[in-house]
Amino acid sequence: MTAPRRISVLGATGSVGLATLDLVARAAPGTFDVVALTARTNAVELARQAIRHRASHVAIADPAAAPELREALAGHPGISIGVGEDAVCEAAAVPADWTMAAIVGAAGLRPTLEAVRQGAALAFANKECLVCAGPLFMQEAARCGATLLPVDSEHNAVFQVFNAAHRSAIRSITLTASGGPFRTWPLERMAAASRTDALTHPTWSMGAKITIDSASMMNKGLEIIEACWLFDLPPEQVEVVVHPQSIVHGLVEYADGSLLAQLGSPDMRTPIASALAWPERMEAPVERLRLDQIARLEFEAPDPVRFPAIRLARDAIRAGGIAPAVLNAANEIAVEAFLAGRIGFLDITASVEEVLALAQADADMPRALAAFEDVFAIDRRARELARDLIGGLSVETRSRNTMS
Amino acid sequence: MTAPRRISVLGATGSVGLATLDLVARAAPGTFDVVALTARTNAVELARQAIRHRASHVAIADPAAAPELREALAGHPGISIGVGEDAVCEAAAVPADWTMAAIVGAAGLRPTLEAVRQGAALAFANKECLVCAGPLFMQEAARCGATLLPVDSEHNAVFQVFNAAHRSAIRSITLTASGGPFRTWPLERMAAASRTDALTHPTWSMGAKITIDSASMMNKGLEIIEACWLFDLPPEQVEVVVHPQSIVHGLVEYADGSLLAQLGSPDMRTPIASALAWPERMEAPVERLRLDQIARLEFEAPDPVRFPAIRLARDAIRAGGIAPAVLNAANEIAVEAFLAGRIGFLDITASVEEVLALAQADADMPRALAAFEDVFAIDRRARELARDLIGGLSVETRSRNTMS
Repeated sequence: MTAPRRISVLGATGSVGLATLDLVARAAPGTFDVVALTARTNAVELARQAIRHRASHVAIADPAAAPELREALAGHPGISIGVGEDAVCEAAAVPADWTMAAIVGAAGLRPTLEAVRQGAALAFANKECLVCAGPLFMQEAARCGATLLPVDSEHNAVFQVFNAAHRSAIRSITLTASGGPFRTWPLERMAAASRTDALTHPTWSMGAKITIDSASMMNKGLEIIEACWLFDLPPEQVEVVVHPQSIVHGLVEYADGSLLAQLGSPDMRTPIASALAWPERMEAPVERLRLDQIARLEFEAPDPVRFPAIRLARDAIRAGGIAPAVLNAANEIAVEAFLAGRIGFLDITASVEEVLALAQADADMPRALAAFEDVFAIDRRARELARDLIGGLSVETRSRNTMS
Repeated sequence: MTAPRRISVLGATGSVGLATLDLVARAAPGTFDVVALTARTNAVELARQAIRHRASHVAIADPAAAPELREALAGHPGISIGVGEDAVCEAAAVPADWTMAAIVGAAGLRPTLEAVRQGAALAFANKECLVCAGPLFMQEAARCGATLLPVDSEHNAVFQVFNAAHRSAIRSITLTASGGPFRTWPLERMAAASRTDALTHPTWSMGAKITIDSASMMNKGLEIIEACWLFDLPPEQVEVVVHPQSIVHGLVEYADGSLLAQLGSPDMRTPIASALAWPERMEAPVERLRLDQIARLEFEAPDPVRFPAIRLARDAIRAGGIAPAVLNAANEIAVEAFLAGRIGFLDITASVEEVLALAQADADMPRALAAFEDVFAIDRRARELARDLIGGLSVETRSRNTMS
């Protein structure tokens, strides 16, 4: 008998958080001991999960949701309640053996950092930590002895077949991309694509922001940046291949000609379970993949003309410093503008490229990424630059520029 | 600096043996130290390799080739020469850290067993050891502490992604099959297939026997038997999927829904290099696999009606005892008869099935597989039964029987 693994879930009421807790509930009694759960605003679900898993700590970021949380947990005096963003960070610091960092966006940065500092196992679904603060985050993980377990399906796939003992024999890693809804669309049609067109993802069911990122392939660009940090590889060794069926999630190429790959149904419960059970394996309630029923797996090179996001991301990680954080912030603003109908689809990457250029010469932009505080300043300033740029141009002007 | 790995190659002049020695020659000086090399008849090549690699021992099985070998090695008194099958076994017993057992057929059984008894690493390309003597061979490997490194591309693929620490979470393994030249042929056309038709393999370039086994999918049947022993799995957990491109060689399915796979160009140097460098990785001079250039990987279930060999093999491993050795021997005789134009293509598996039935009731057949000597007796008797059966039937009669 080993002691239960003490686990915390940051972002417990989102899809990754709930899937994690669902797997925890299915495990044999005594396997896991839930320590802390956090959420942004969903007090009802947070309380429900805390009660179900007999958590010892909960924290809710939004003070407006606190009364509801307190009420829902009124009959459970054993659960300590924290309110506000600092309380979320405190919950992340409660000793645990394994933490799922699934808080979306920049809000996840501080709590994830707290979890890293535990020096234990950290499963993470938050992109910003590595995209915007890669060097700092990796340095902190090394300093504290944390083990990073990627949950994003592509990175998780690579992680599963990346043998660190063979690192000098690793030639490249490959992240697959579904190609999104515009994989086969000509450039002119992409320029006129609507919000609805871009939100129709062929294989994965995800939130709006990430679905648009998938349509522009900026998602894959951000994943290249993450992979460079996570696997300590230069961007030249991180390849992307378009694979419409989303069955092969990632591959590692070794010097003897072997490509090791992880395949699976497009279901987040598989990578979550692989991180949750690491270094063991557990059962996940996912459909068994039958290759003979899938019948066909297709692969193609991404089109650099229609999907410039991959080039932008490679340039940003090569440039290093502030560039990846600028790319990320500018992209968020551009996606918001596209979703609001203020710019065309191709304007997303075009404006990201312009903001990257503007940031170089901008007097109010931090010049380097030296501390975690810089991440927030870079993010803030890049958003301002992006808003100014997008606000200053009508949809028609921008679309014309992009197409010329 | 670690000491050079002392290696021996049994069957040094065949394609696997030569590829192994080619990889050894490419490795950094001091990586390997060649101990013993053996061959059946090719004295010139054996001498050439022994001189090139400064081997200390050579052995040639065929006494008729001995004078030529002695002549070729006349100026190399440091190389000790053995002649005859016992000498091959003695060469296999010369202390080595790693042995490639690449002697084809039943002749490989004794030398491979000698190599197993070294209790070191044993790379093997010989099917008979596991097909005909699986329980004895595995027991001997366990007793002597030998590590078995499969070189056959499918088993090597599975081995690369089979994490023994996760064995209780392994749901199944899958061996891929090219489907051979008759993958899309209707049964009637297969019945009339010529020697040339059957020898035209779509992806791998191999010897005649194995190419015919690939056309009948008996090759895959034998591989199922091998896999059951090697990975200690019941036949129900060893699946076969037809994959015409021969890029994905094998997969392991885990309980969390992950399928880990090894992919590679159809080039034996990859699995050989992976075994040679084990537990490390080395470089192999193989073409890099580009999934976007491959473009498409297809998978389909094998047709049990047109390819009964898979069912026969599953039944044989389930029955255990003498059945797998009978299956193997009967198949060898049937393939010979097909290549000689004496039976039709579908008669191969039909006669194997009949010999399996005859063996059950045959008074001269050993009843069990209790010792290695039994393997030879079973093999001999099964061949007699197969020859009698095939000799007693004209091509036309047999073909008619098979088709009815």
